[in-house]
Amino acid sequence: MTEIVATPSVEIERLASRARRLHEAELVDPTVDHAALLEAVAAAIEVRTGDLLPPAEEETGLAEARLRGEIARTTGQLRAFATAVRKGESHDPIIDLADPEATPPRPDQRRANLPLGPVAVFAASNFPFAFGVAGGDTASAWAAGCPALVKAHPGHPRLSRALAAAVEAGLAESGADPAWFALVEGADEATGAALATVAEVAAIAFTGSFGGGTAIARLAASRPEPIPVYAEMGAVNPVLVTPAAAAARGESIGAGLAAAVTAHAGQLCTKPGVVMLVDDEAGRALAAALAAGITAAPPHRMLYPALAESFARGLAVAADDPRVSAVVDGAPRAGEDGDGRLGALLELRAADLRPDDPRLKELFGPAALIVWAGDGEELLAAAGHLEGSLAAAVHAEPGEELGGRLLRSLRGRVGRMIWNEFPTGVTVGHATVHGGPFPATTAPTTTSVGMTAMRRFLRPVGYQGVPDELLPPALRDANPLGLLRQVDGEWTRDAVNV
Amino acid sequence: MTEIVATPSVEIERLASRARRLHEAELVDPTVDHAALLEAVAAAIEVRTGDLLPPAEEETGLAEARLRGEIARTTGQLRAFATAVRKGESHDPIIDLADPEATPPRPDQRRANLPLGPVAVFAASNFPFAFGVAGGDTASAWAAGCPALVKAHPGHPRLSRALAAAVEAGLAESGADPAWFALVEGADEATGAALATVAEVAAIAFTGSFGGGTAIARLAASRPEPIPVYAEMGAVNPVLVTPAAAAARGESIGAGLAAAVTAHAGQLCTKPGVVMLVDDEAGRALAAALAAGITAAPPHRMLYPALAESFARGLAVAADDPRVSAVVDGAPRAGEDGDGRLGALLELRAADLRPDDPRLKELFGPAALIVWAGDGEELLAAAGHLEGSLAAAVHAEPGEELGGRLLRSLRGRVGRMIWNEFPTGVTVGHATVHGGPFPATTAPTTTSVGMTAMRRFLRPVGYQGVPDELLPPALRDANPLGLLRQVDGEWTRDAVNV
Repeated sequence: MTEIVATPSVEIERLASRARRLHEAELVDPTVDHAALLEAVAAAIEVRTGDLLPPAEEETGLAEARLRGEIARTTGQLRAFATAVRKGESHDPIIDLADPEATPPRPDQRRANLPLGPVAVFAASNFPFAFGVAGGDTASAWAAGCPALVKAHPGHPRLSRALAAAVEAGLAESGADPAWFALVEGADEATGAALATVAEVAAIAFTGSFGGGTAIARLAASRPEPIPVYAEMGAVNPVLVTPAAAAARGESIGAGLAAAVTAHAGQLCTKPGVVMLVDDEAGRALAAALAAGITAAPPHRMLYPALAESFARGLAVAADDPRVSAVVDGAPRAGEDGDGRLGALLELRAADLRPDDPRLKELFGPAALIVWAGDGEELLAAAGHLEGSLAAAVHAEPGEELGGRLLRSLRGRVGRMIWNEFPTGVTVGHATVHGGPFPATTAPTTTSVGMTAMRRFLRPVGYQGVPDELLPPALRDANPLGLLRQVDGEWTRDAVNV
Repeated sequence: MTEIVATPSVEIERLASRARRLHEAELVDPTVDHAALLEAVAAAIEVRTGDLLPPAEEETGLAEARLRGEIARTTGQLRAFATAVRKGESHDPIIDLADPEATPPRPDQRRANLPLGPVAVFAASNFPFAFGVAGGDTASAWAAGCPALVKAHPGHPRLSRALAAAVEAGLAESGADPAWFALVEGADEATGAALATVAEVAAIAFTGSFGGGTAIARLAASRPEPIPVYAEMGAVNPVLVTPAAAAARGESIGAGLAAAVTAHAGQLCTKPGVVMLVDDEAGRALAAALAAGITAAPPHRMLYPALAESFARGLAVAADDPRVSAVVDGAPRAGEDGDGRLGALLELRAADLRPDDPRLKELFGPAALIVWAGDGEELLAAAGHLEGSLAAAVHAEPGEELGGRLLRSLRGRVGRMIWNEFPTGVTVGHATVHGGPFPATTAPTTTSVGMTAMRRFLRPVGYQGVPDELLPPALRDANPLGLLRQVDGEWTRDAVNV
C-alpha cells in the first residue's frame, strides 16, 4: 500500500487562504478564461492516459476498458463545461428596466451570477477519474469560476497524485494561477474534518457513503460560518416491474438487472439495490434469470478492503433478519480468489415491510433485494416504503396504466426516473439530474452531474441603478455577450435601452 | 397584550402530516391551479384591508400609510407570482434528445422541476404584511407548488390571525384544499423548534434576527433528515461615499441617509447601518447633515418591547467601546414619549477597525455608525472589513475611478449593489436579489424576495426514455405549454421529435 501522509491542518489553511485570495482578486478584476482552463486540464489528462492507467488499475481493481471509458467521460465533461461556459450558461442574466411611472417608481435592477468562493471537493472512491481529483465536482466548481481544494480518496493515492500533476500541468499550460487547484491527502477523519471546517472554503461537494456525507454535513453546520454542503451519498435505486412487463420480457429484464447489479462489483451509486416484482409465474422466471446472471458473474475485487468488509457485514446483517432469505448467498466459492466478491441476491415479501424498518437500505456492492408483492396494487403500496433515491426504473408495457401510476408515485422521492432501462449509467448533459431527496443527497434542489451542477457554486448579485460601464458584460445594455436574457419577464437576446 | 396560546407539538405534527399528504397527492396527480390560489388570496386580503389595518397599526406601531403601501406590495407580489406561474417560470425545462450514434449512446433525457414539499415559514416582525403570514416566503412556496406552515411572529398575533382568516377564505374561494396553509402560533422557542424539526417539513424559510436564524439552522441540521434552511437575518448594508460625491452633493446624501436610517425606527433589514466617509470638509458636512436629519426625526415606537430593549443594549455596548464616539446619542429627550426610540449616530476611525473585532455588526433600530477614512485608499481598505450584507450602496460621481473600484470590491460580499441611492426599499421583480453571504443569510445562492425566490422550493426531476404521454406537460414533445426550453443546449420554443 502506498503510504499517505496527511496534509497538515496548517497546510490546508494555507491552501484555502491562497484560494480565497485568488477568488477575491478575480471578483474585483476577472482575468481567467475558465473555459480555456477546463480544456487545458482535459488535454493534460488525455496526453497522460498512459501514466494514469497503471496506478488506476492497480489501486482500484477496475478493468482497463472501464477506466479508459471513464477517462473519456472525464475529459468529455471538462470540455462540455468549457462549452457551457463559452455559451454563457453560468450568468443567468435577468434585467428589470426602470419604470419611473410605477407606484412606487421602479429602479433599473439587474442580476447575474458570481462565483461563490473556494470549493472543497471530497472525491469518490468508485469513479477514480469521473468523480476523482479532476472529476465532475472539480469541473463544475471551475466552470462556476471557483477554485477547488480536492481531498483525494485514500483508496487510490498514486492515481490521485498523477491526476493532480496533470491538473497542475494543465493550469500552467493555460496560464492560470496554481491556486485554482490544491490536492489534500489523508486517510484519517481529521484531514476531512480540517478541510470541511477551514474558514476560507465557501461550499463543500462530497461523493461517498451516507456515513461520510452526513458527518461532513454535521461538521459544516457547526462552523461559525455555515456553508452549503452538496453531498451525494448513494441510494437503493429501485427497479419496479409490472406483471405485464415481466410476462413480455422477464428474462431480458432479469439478465439486464444482473449485469447492473454485478458490474464493477456493484460499486456504483446508481446500482439497483431493490427489485420489486409481482409473485406470479413471470415474476419468478424474471427472478430466476436475475439469480442465474448474478451467479454467473465472475468474482470482482472491491475497491479497497474496508469496502469489502462493510459489504460482508451488511450481507450478514441482512441474513440475520428473519424476514429475509438468500436466493444467491454471495459466499466465496472454494478455490476462487478470496479477494473477489461474488454477487448476492436476497428476497423478502412486501407484506413484511414495516414502516419503522422497511429493510430497504443501500448495500454498496454486488447485491440486490427482491421485494415480492402479491399484485400490482401491493407493488404500488410497497413503493411507498422507499426513501429518497438518486434513480428509479419502471418496467412496464406500452399503455399499461400501472406503469404510469408507479412512475408518478415514485417521482416525488427520486432524482431521475428511468423507463424500461436500468439506473446504472448516467449521461452527462444539460438535462442530467444526479441528485434526489435525502438520504440520497443533502441538497435536494441540486444535481452533482451535468451542466447544471455548476449552479451549486454560483451566487446571484443584484445591481440597482449601476452605470452601464460598471455592470458585468452579461448585464450591459448592448448585450455584448449575446446572451438570452430575461428582460421585464420576457426572454430576449435584444439590447435594452436602445 | 393579546394572549398567545402556543400551538402544541402534536398539532404541528398533525398540520405537517396533512400538508405532506396533500403534497404527495399533488405529486401523483396535480389538481391545483397555483396561480388561481395566489390570486384568490391576494383578493381576499384586499377586500379585508379595513379589518387588517387596525390590528396592524396597534400591534406594530407602524404608520397607516406605510401599512397601506405594504398591503399593496403583498397583494402585488402574490399576483406577480401568479403571473410567473402562468408563464411557466417554475418549470426550468431542459431536454437532451437521444443520440444512438454517440459513444456511449445517449438516451433521451429530460428534466423539469417539481415542488420540494411542505415549507415551514417563520414570518418577520418588521414587515407584518409583506413578510408576514401571506408574505413573500409563503407566496413563493405556493408558487413552487408547496404547502406552507406559517409561524406567526408573536409581535402581532391579532393581525396574523386576521391574515390567516383571509388566506383561508382565499383558499376556499379558489377551491383549494385547506391543507395548503396552516397557522402556527407561539411566543416561546419551543414552538419554533417543534416546527423546525417536525418530520414532514421539507424546507424552512426564516426572516428575522441573526440569533433566531442561526438557531433554526442548527436545529434543522440536527434533524435525522436535514433540510434546506433559507434564513434571511439582516445586515449592516454599508453606504460608501467617495470624496467627489460628498463634495458634489453631501447635504443631499446626508439627508437621504438620515431618512433611510430613521424611517420606521430603522427596523428594516436593509437599513444602512454603516456609513464610510473620507474625513475632509465635504465628508464632515455630509456627516453634519446626517446628524441633523437623525436629530430632527421624530421618536418612533419600536415593533415590540424586546426589540427596544435589545436596541438600547446594543447602543450601550457600542458606547462602552473606547474606539466609538456618539455624534447623536439617541437618549430619550425629556418630556417625550418614553415608548418612542430616537435615532443615534456613532462614529469611529477606520484606523481603529480590527480584523478580529471590526465593530461593524448590525444594530437593529434607528442607528448608524460612521467610519472615517483618511482618504479614498483607506476607504477601500475599510470596506475589506465588512461581512456579508444584503445590500451596499456606493455614492460616486460619473466616471470616477474610485466608485468602480468600491463597487467591484464590495460585490463579492453583498447581495444587491446600489449606485447613488440607499439600500432601503426592495423592488419585487424578476431581477430582485434579497440575499447575500453569511451572516446576511444561511443560503448565499438564493434570494428571499422576487420571482426567483420560488427556486428555493423546487427540485429538478429527470426522466430518461419516458413515453411522451407520461411526461409532465412542460417536457412533452409538442411543448403544449409553449415554454422556452433548453434543447440539446440551445434555447427554443419549438416542438421536438417532429
